[in-house]
Amino acid sequence: MNFCSNCGTRVVLKVPEGDFLPRHVCGHCGTIHYQNPKIVVGSVPEYQGRILICKRGIEPRLGYWTIPAGFMENDETVQAGAAREAREEALIDVEIGSLLLVANVTHAHQVHIFFRSRMRTPDFGVTHESTEVMLVDEKDIPWGDLAFPSTEFALRRFVEDRAAGVERHHVAEMPRRF
Amino acid sequence: MNFCSNCGTRVVLKVPEGDFLPRHVCGHCGTIHYQNPKIVVGSVPEYQGRILICKRGIEPRLGYWTIPAGFMENDETVQAGAAREAREEALIDVEIGSLLLVANVTHAHQVHIFFRSRMRTPDFGVTHESTEVMLVDEKDIPWGDLAFPSTEFALRRFVEDRAAGVERHHVAEMPRRF
Repeated sequence: MNFCSNCGTRVVLKVPEGDFLPRHVCGHCGTIHYQNPKIVVGSVPEYQGRILICKRGIEPRLGYWTIPAGFMENDETVQAGAAREAREEALIDVEIGSLLLVANVTHAHQVHIFFRSRMRTPDFGVTHESTEVMLVDEKDIPWGDLAFPSTEFALRRFVEDRAAGVERHHVAEMPRRF
Repeated sequence: MNFCSNCGTRVVLKVPEGDFLPRHVCGHCGTIHYQNPKIVVGSVPEYQGRILICKRGIEPRLGYWTIPAGFMENDETVQAGAAREAREEALIDVEIGSLLLVANVTHAHQVHIFFRSRMRTPDFGVTHESTEVMLVDEKDIPWGDLAFPSTEFALRRFVEDRAAGVERHHVAEMPRRF
């Protein structure tokens, strides 16, 4: 950040009075520009026991497999965002279920909030974000070709919990990379 | 948002190619300035059965009672943020416990993530953010003078769950105001 988004003046990095961290502050209009973690919302979609996964058509991790997830937008709930991402990335219509994972992805300044979801119909399709979309049996999940640590963590807990007949939630910290 | 924080040029509001929402876009350097919900982290601190609450010394809702909570910072986990807010607002040292609440505060572009927490010592004190801090019995919670809907929701679920001997998590949408 170099300039004030309010008045266009160059910002300076300093600790505002009463604060404890350096912030980008505008010396002209006084605006303090806070930078905070972003929320990624998503779900593990299920249809009659099979799990939907998407091959990423965009960077980062182009070509690796993931669950439908993306940045939460203003004016939506976490569940609505997770359902929107499922539509956008795999053209699926899901009912969002129980909370599966709150993942600290600290190095990326992100918190991932993932749910279980149920596909209302078996329809799905590719999009500009996903070059392939598949409904797979648990044994066919491409564990070695998953996109992100939170993808693997969510899928592992999903299948473990399902095998145990429970719908637990997990709060965990993700490593920087596999 | 009026100016590009990268290069200082005036931004325009338009839907970028491949996107579905209008964003502030810089016509000069091409930066797209996304605006996303912020995370508020906090906890319901407990010491030997009593609950710690703080009287807000700052706006919004100055003079009303709340639990220690505030905006999550980059480079911390949700639990570390919740513990930091407890230190900053009430000078308490807490161990963060189970997840209590994920609250959609959609109108404010916020998601509140609250935990149960255990005070390691009975020590607490006022700060510039809290004009009073109290350890209260459940029956003495000032229900009519709480700061935010998420404060009340978290405290109600906390006491209900404790009475039931369980530590559930809740995902809920908050109304705009009481």
